[in-house]
Amino acid sequence: MTMLNPTSGAVRLLSRAAEHGVTVCFANPGTTELALTAAFDAETRVRPVLCSFEGVCSGAADGYGRMLDRPALTLTHLGPGFANALANLHNARRADSPVINLIGDHTSTHLKYDTPLTSDIAALANTVSRYVGTITHADDAAPQLDAAMAATRQAQSRVATLIFPADFQQQSAAAPAPLVAADTPMRGEVYLDHLGSVVPALRDGTRAVLLLHPRAACAEGTRLAGEIAQATGCDVAYGATPARCERGRSHYAIARVPYFPEPARAYLDGFRHVILVGARPPVTYFGYEGQDSELVSAERLQPFASVEDDLLAALRALHEAVGAVNGSAVPSAPAAPVPNALAARICERVAALLPQDAIVTIEGSTFGGPFQAYSAAAAPHSELALPGGAIGMGLPCALGAAVACPDRKVVALQSDGSAMYTLQALWTMAREQADVVVIIAANRRYQILQTELARIGDLADMPVSAAMTQLQAPHLDWCGIAQASGVAAYRVDAADAFDRAFKTCLTTRGPTLIEVLC
Amino acid sequence: MTMLNPTSGAVRLLSRAAEHGVTVCFANPGTTELALTAAFDAETRVRPVLCSFEGVCSGAADGYGRMLDRPALTLTHLGPGFANALANLHNARRADSPVINLIGDHTSTHLKYDTPLTSDIAALANTVSRYVGTITHADDAAPQLDAAMAATRQAQSRVATLIFPADFQQQSAAAPAPLVAADTPMRGEVYLDHLGSVVPALRDGTRAVLLLHPRAACAEGTRLAGEIAQATGCDVAYGATPARCERGRSHYAIARVPYFPEPARAYLDGFRHVILVGARPPVTYFGYEGQDSELVSAERLQPFASVEDDLLAALRALHEAVGAVNGSAVPSAPAAPVPNALAARICERVAALLPQDAIVTIEGSTFGGPFQAYSAAAAPHSELALPGGAIGMGLPCALGAAVACPDRKVVALQSDGSAMYTLQALWTMAREQADVVVIIAANRRYQILQTELARIGDLADMPVSAAMTQLQAPHLDWCGIAQASGVAAYRVDAADAFDRAFKTCLTTRGPTLIEVLC
Repeated sequence: MTMLNPTSGAVRLLSRAAEHGVTVCFANPGTTELALTAAFDAETRVRPVLCSFEGVCSGAADGYGRMLDRPALTLTHLGPGFANALANLHNARRADSPVINLIGDHTSTHLKYDTPLTSDIAALANTVSRYVGTITHADDAAPQLDAAMAATRQAQSRVATLIFPADFQQQSAAAPAPLVAADTPMRGEVYLDHLGSVVPALRDGTRAVLLLHPRAACAEGTRLAGEIAQATGCDVAYGATPARCERGRSHYAIARVPYFPEPARAYLDGFRHVILVGARPPVTYFGYEGQDSELVSAERLQPFASVEDDLLAALRALHEAVGAVNGSAVPSAPAAPVPNALAARICERVAALLPQDAIVTIEGSTFGGPFQAYSAAAAPHSELALPGGAIGMGLPCALGAAVACPDRKVVALQSDGSAMYTLQALWTMAREQADVVVIIAANRRYQILQTELARIGDLADMPVSAAMTQLQAPHLDWCGIAQASGVAAYRVDAADAFDRAFKTCLTTRGPTLIEVLC
Repeated sequence: MTMLNPTSGAVRLLSRAAEHGVTVCFANPGTTELALTAAFDAETRVRPVLCSFEGVCSGAADGYGRMLDRPALTLTHLGPGFANALANLHNARRADSPVINLIGDHTSTHLKYDTPLTSDIAALANTVSRYVGTITHADDAAPQLDAAMAATRQAQSRVATLIFPADFQQQSAAAPAPLVAADTPMRGEVYLDHLGSVVPALRDGTRAVLLLHPRAACAEGTRLAGEIAQATGCDVAYGATPARCERGRSHYAIARVPYFPEPARAYLDGFRHVILVGARPPVTYFGYEGQDSELVSAERLQPFASVEDDLLAALRALHEAVGAVNGSAVPSAPAAPVPNALAARICERVAALLPQDAIVTIEGSTFGGPFQAYSAAAAPHSELALPGGAIGMGLPCALGAAVACPDRKVVALQSDGSAMYTLQALWTMAREQADVVVIIAANRRYQILQTELARIGDLADMPVSAAMTQLQAPHLDWCGIAQASGVAAYRVDAADAFDRAFKTCLTTRGPTLIEVLC
């Protein structure tokens, strides 16, 4: 028996994935994944995309899943390799992205010897996965893949993980039973119970806000919400950072609850009725000494739909109940006046030049905040943000989105501090010729930490801790890093130079990077 | 109450660490670690070393602990940040390196809201830690640090982890009880029971091998083992990859059991008596289809010392029992003839030029194998290898060793594939002006995977999987990456050019990198 066995457990598993419509695997294999590696020559319907760090595999699978709503595979090496994927799997879990992780394990008879690379893989996997399966026989590969697929079809927490010992990858497996068409998961109808109380609240006009679960932020959900707002005068905001939302001048511009607790509370205090459309009661992002985490008192909260509901059906019911008018398109907010700060001016230019149907990934506050001011008036696009909060998402997510949607331009708005965590994504972008423009806000500091430290003291009084927020001495040369990874790069320090560089990047096929000194 | 509170739980914890002799913290903090961050301004006996990725923090703490046998701290942000540190903590656990991890957690009252960054930190920590403590009150900080320190004083598995909610970091804590001098852990004396059977086996001369736990590989252990070998004709080999060993021409050259199962079995089959000095019965690194994992049959194994024993005492007893002679220094093996392959010629030059008391970190087989052939004849030095097998160890470990031993030159022998996992270490090397020469074997492939794939088939028949072992199209420009991180770099493709570059690097204070195209 060789690893090239065309009926090996590894081949059976990839073939089953292909039957389910899986076409991509973001991979960083090792010795215990050799049979799975070799299986890509036998089952060519699933294409491996090599990543040079596992956090790139998982972040790319997250971005891929957000765009196509079906899973990519990841392939990582034992516990330590999988551990490197965990931070972006945390993000995928919070984004409700479908992902299936394949992890090789030692040959089953070898495991008991506790050799150097042995560790508790299942314990790691359980922290991010709805389903963790261990394959215990070659014949078990296809059924376990079916179970993993079923987990990715749920409404929330759609990461599944399979642990696949090397011997069962190699051994022959019987042909699995024919694929059974998957049931569409039942969605609840909790909203029907609440329609009677929510409609009068909405009639209170500007004193009501709909807090939307981001899953409702597709084109139709955005339209329905906008027309409800138009009909009632209510506001609409996301109840959490959206994993993906549709935005731009043909879409109603849904608001965001501010990040820091004081402005978040001030925003929400403006409403008597906070209506939860799949969203949870709003709380602060972090806990702060002397402040409640809960942003809205219980008596002002009105549950409407549950997260397990069909949220579009819920919005349609509400739309009808308040007499909203189909096609009563709400013009997007005009762009805010351009302030002088370079980051804001860059974001204004990105919004102005953004191609139709672009995908924009956003990580970090330097561009993330200002871009919101302009993106409502940009060409229609999809935005992928950071619902899980684990930095290192941006570059891999952009890679995965580009692999998922090769005909759409991807723009990665990125801060320099967070880009460092998974900068290996640049190399895979070059290898795949992924059509991504990376824009790095090179402010050479952890701005969010400086902001948080300044909330409690004067940075001048804290030289040691202030130095821990500075990416200086030396600064990072992002053009150099990009070029060394095979990505063409430009450095700019003014809006007009950015404009020229960005136009060049938009007309270039394949990855490019612009480092903005700001 | 502000975060600058000089009697905060965070300050109390750092002060207690300082009382225990801890002086360094490899840090990548976030918002939930702000009070710990600010505490470095109040307790300046512990110096923070900023890393731009958490795997650098943990790998550096591993290297630091191996050199000084006392812990450095790591500081990481919640579960996802800590997850990025896990692979190198796996290595630290397998290396028996003392490390104390500090992880901030959400404000205790906030945890129940399951906000974006919440995850099961303890589950992650348990996979690598001997001790996991959650601080439940500001007064609890110092006692928990004491418990963590106690865990780092054990013989094996010396990683401890403390989870420290943000509110208890900030709140005032009472002055802790005075530090009690730590008990020296009791070591066992299992070896006394076996002395009577082991001595006759050793008298069997060349048919016996001592398999040493690497913990005995200090200067004295190496001397004792060499003199036992001299007196009896036995061989001495490491029973596992050494976390650290002393090597070079004043030290007896201890052998290594080969990596692949066939040569490993052939080597061990040469001995009737395999005597375990703290080592476990030897097994293959990975399990292979159709091969036993156990390399030596039970009747040939002779347990001598247990891993919990005082291994130096065990060697001294054996030394005396076989009548070994103090000072019967065994000359190290002469250097092997230089083969033509460039990697081997580079290793010969590194060994020839290595300064006295250098520290050499080794990751990857391209340099790792050949260097063993020459390092026995080099100037005396400490070698740090990869007992845990999780790649991404080399660069951070070199950084940590340089921080631990600023007066010793560090040489990092590194493969390109593994360097990618934690390349962010280069930036901290530059920031700290760590005295490290990084030598990258740029063969632009995962050589180990090509070797393993070739064991089972012809790479030409496996174009898809073979492509997954190639770091090509584009290749990585390691000089560019280094320079972009603030590290001076040289590219060479011949031994004489290497020689010149290495001499320049050896006379340069601070980090340098040589990319060897091989």
